[in-house]
Amino acid sequence: MELTHLDGEGQAFMVDVGGKEMTERVAVAAALVKMKPETLELILAGNIKKGDVFASARIAGIMAAKRTPDLIPLCHPIPLTSAAVEVKPQKPDAVEIIVTVKCRYTTGVEMEALTAASVAALTIYDMCKAVDRGMEITCLRLLSKSGGRSGEYHRTETE
Amino acid sequence: MELTHLDGEGQAFMVDVGGKEMTERVAVAAALVKMKPETLELILAGNIKKGDVFASARIAGIMAAKRTPDLIPLCHPIPLTSAAVEVKPQKPDAVEIIVTVKCRYTTGVEMEALTAASVAALTIYDMCKAVDRGMEITCLRLLSKSGGRSGEYHRTETE
Amino acid sequence: MELTHLDGEGQAFMVDVGGKEMTERVAVAAALVKMKPETLELILAGNIKKGDVFASARIAGIMAAKRTPDLIPLCHPIPLTSAAVEVKPQKPDAVEIIVTVKCRYTTGVEMEALTAASVAALTIYDMCKAVDRGMEITCLRLLSKSGGRSGEYHRTETE
Amino acid sequence: MELTHLDGEGQAFMVDVGGKEMTERVAVAAALVKMKPETLELILAGNIKKGDVFASARIAGIMAAKRTPDLIPLCHPIPLTSAAVEVKPQKPDAVEIIVTVKCRYTTGVEMEALTAASVAALTIYDMCKAVDRGMEITCLRLLSKSGGRSGEYHRTETE
Amino acid sequence: MELTHLDGEGQAFMVDVGGKEMTERVAVAAALVKMKPETLELILAGNIKKGDVFASARIAGIMAAKRTPDLIPLCHPIPLTSAAVEVKPQKPDAVEIIVTVKCRYTTGVEMEALTAASVAALTIYDMCKAVDRGMEITCLRLLSKSGGRSGEYHRTETE
Amino acid sequence: MELTHLDGEGQAFMVDVGGKEMTERVAVAAALVKMKPETLELILAGNIKKGDVFASARIAGIMAAKRTPDLIPLCHPIPLTSAAVEVKPQKPDAVEIIVTVKCRYTTGVEMEALTAASVAALTIYDMCKAVDRGMEITCLRLLSKSGGRSGEYHRTETE
Repeated sequence: MELTHLDGEGQAFMVDVGGKEMTERVAVAAALVKMKPETLELILAGNIKKGDVFASARIAGIMAAKRTPDLIPLCHPIPLTSAAVEVKPQKPDAVEIIVTVKCRYTTGVEMEALTAASVAALTIYDMCKAVDRGMEITCLRLLSKSGGRSGEYHRTETE
Repeated sequence: MELTHLDGEGQAFMVDVGGKEMTERVAVAAALVKMKPETLELILAGNIKKGDVFASARIAGIMAAKRTPDLIPLCHPIPLTSAAVEVKPQKPDAVEIIVTVKCRYTTGVEMEALTAASVAALTIYDMCKAVDRGMEITCLRLLSKSGGRSGEYHRTETE
Repeated sequence: MELTHLDGEGQAFMVDVGGKEMTERVAVAAALVKMKPETLELILAGNIKKGDVFASARIAGIMAAKRTPDLIPLCHPIPLTSAAVEVKPQKPDAVEIIVTVKCRYTTGVEMEALTAASVAALTIYDMCKAVDRGMEITCLRLLSKSGGRSGEYHRTETE
Repeated sequence: MELTHLDGEGQAFMVDVGGKEMTERVAVAAALVKMKPETLELILAGNIKKGDVFASARIAGIMAAKRTPDLIPLCHPIPLTSAAVEVKPQKPDAVEIIVTVKCRYTTGVEMEALTAASVAALTIYDMCKAVDRGMEITCLRLLSKSGGRSGEYHRTETE
Repeated sequence: MELTHLDGEGQAFMVDVGGKEMTERVAVAAALVKMKPETLELILAGNIKKGDVFASARIAGIMAAKRTPDLIPLCHPIPLTSAAVEVKPQKPDAVEIIVTVKCRYTTGVEMEALTAASVAALTIYDMCKAVDRGMEITCLRLLSKSGGRSGEYHRTETE
Repeated sequence: MELTHLDGEGQAFMVDVGGKEMTERVAVAAALVKMKPETLELILAGNIKKGDVFASARIAGIMAAKRTPDLIPLCHPIPLTSAAVEVKPQKPDAVEIIVTVKCRYTTGVEMEALTAASVAALTIYDMCKAVDRGMEITCLRLLSKSGGRSGEYHRTETE
């Protein structure tokens, strides 16, 4: 077993995905923003009025999915076919973010989904930090992926 | 108490920092990448040889600090004066990332530090995902900030 | 009278703003998206539910203000201190966009305001084009500017 | 009839274009920059010497076509196969911009053509604003598109 | 013989690659950073400890390959399938950079390889400039290309 | 003597420029594009008609100066006050590029000038590569810098 991004001498490079099969690929990632209950109440009250905190997080997440190869050094540029960011209050003290990204390509979109979830979470932090600096982003992880040679992956409870 | 990024009608906007004082500001953020013990061993073995996993994460984090206003919708463009990303193994099964960002400006660099920590962590995920898809990024949080009207902030254990 | 971006031989360059005074500068720009009345009704119906068309346009406009020097070749990078995008239905058949951008710098932010208004308008076009390909973006113009050597500017009716 | 970028709850997402057919697609967009007659004369005089105002607008437009998914939140990244920006004086008081963008992909390039036309027009504004702040960008619209399920579109006079 | 990026009137445009065949394409480019012998010694001493100068150059080069269409006005966006940057000391007074980029597409990746080599070299300059401002980047050139209608290219000594 | 971008353990970081004096800084860099004489003749013939090869190189160089912190990992974001790119034929077989960049800041703009010169040269390569694949970019170097603690630098012949 070896780290695929390191060549024989341990130097980073972008692995060759040219010979891999072009298949439909889906990745789902999630994150949790933990906050004070009163912060969630403020967001939800604002949300009822105009929805901009959650809308901003969704838009930021979708745009970040597209910026992934600009951010993560060894990610390939991938023509994404769809991206969706769900932002859901988890009462009493958290917001859950679930991102689904798809492509039809020779490599998967796990990093796109994770990057989108991360930036959506950071956007919530940014918009609420004046009232709650202690928020924490946690559980940023891959829920599932399909397509590609390595087959399906579904995160299990024990992980 | 209200969310400062929402105007009277709940619409997002970039808050005016023009009237705030230009002071030296520092923000420190951290994150943890949880992984299998054998993944950490692989990184460290590679790291001993050439150091590229940790070096890549550091570079990606520093570059991401500079991209923050491109990613987080309501962040101001800020002329950063320094950025440093520490990547430290936490045996047996985690890597810790600590980012320190500084500027001399009218608004702080918390989002820059958090974004850098997040992208450094995602870079580690990307470079190791072929051997450990179940890695999880957690505890992404602000450790401290100083400078600015709202004074010093130091995260306490109980948060 | 001469075009300030062209040197003696007519070659483009980024004019030197180093010697100019650092003052508070404000620019206000606007645009109109003309559409079918039924398109506006659809947006408003969606808007009443969740507000995402207008929210997306606002976020896209604010982010575009920050990207202006990446897009307009001879624009200076400017540390913006605020940006706000208002998106207002103009019944029966238009949406009006008004952008206000501020900085404290040696050059103004007209281009940032105009670029933001343009991208906010294009975002509305994008989100509605499946139902109304004939929409037209019009009246993209500077409403006012203040600060700087050339003094105040307020667009008059006759222009 | 519904807005395709909004899901059942009115939340923005990037629509899935993975199942659509890969076909040759062309989009043509246009814009008009209205200005004082003496401004056009100045441009043309400069243009005769070196051509940099129009050349800058063409280059900025082409580069903007490639940046479209970075600017318009729900646009897909598309591998463009060509982009051309025509900049033509419309005597006595306007400059016309016509942009043609092509790709072979599962979704069209209308937004790329419109974004390019918009940025080319803004570049002309930027380079001439010192002599004519009252310029106005108008008639930014899609002239035609072909390829794709929705068939050909040609803008008609009455729109 | 004519310059393919200029149309009949000498105006720049992005040439149409839509009708070209999709083939495996490889480009190899190289550059040399000339420096004082003591600068190379310092790098190598640092490199033995942690390798960050060469690692930073490799990462910067790979990321730059992906940014090529953002930098070179008439380059097409290309879905790269791999990128590798080799950084090798050339004792006593130079560092050699060799970049290999691949894609499966209708146009080649020469510019990606050259841009990556250039940015890797500039990164070395940046990290060492405090001790050796007189460094010079030289011999930035295409070593070979394959794939595509124009056939193989291998640089010869006499060029 | 030590490399200022490496900390005690040889890890890359963005050096702190917060305590340095804000002064007027100028950097001048240059590069040479060597080509076949007939390639230069083709450019000049095109140039006489419309000037787009040189105009494109100038615009690309200016835009690249602004993108420098996105490309060079440890460069600070700097509010440039001016940038100018001169492109001059060096008969019979070369094009010379000279870039001047200025800022009023706590750190210098050498990397901005060098990056601009490099991208302007690559743009010429790109636009002419169909007729002359053997072109070579050479002599990319800093000609002079002023401002800042380390004083004036003027490249001498012997370097």
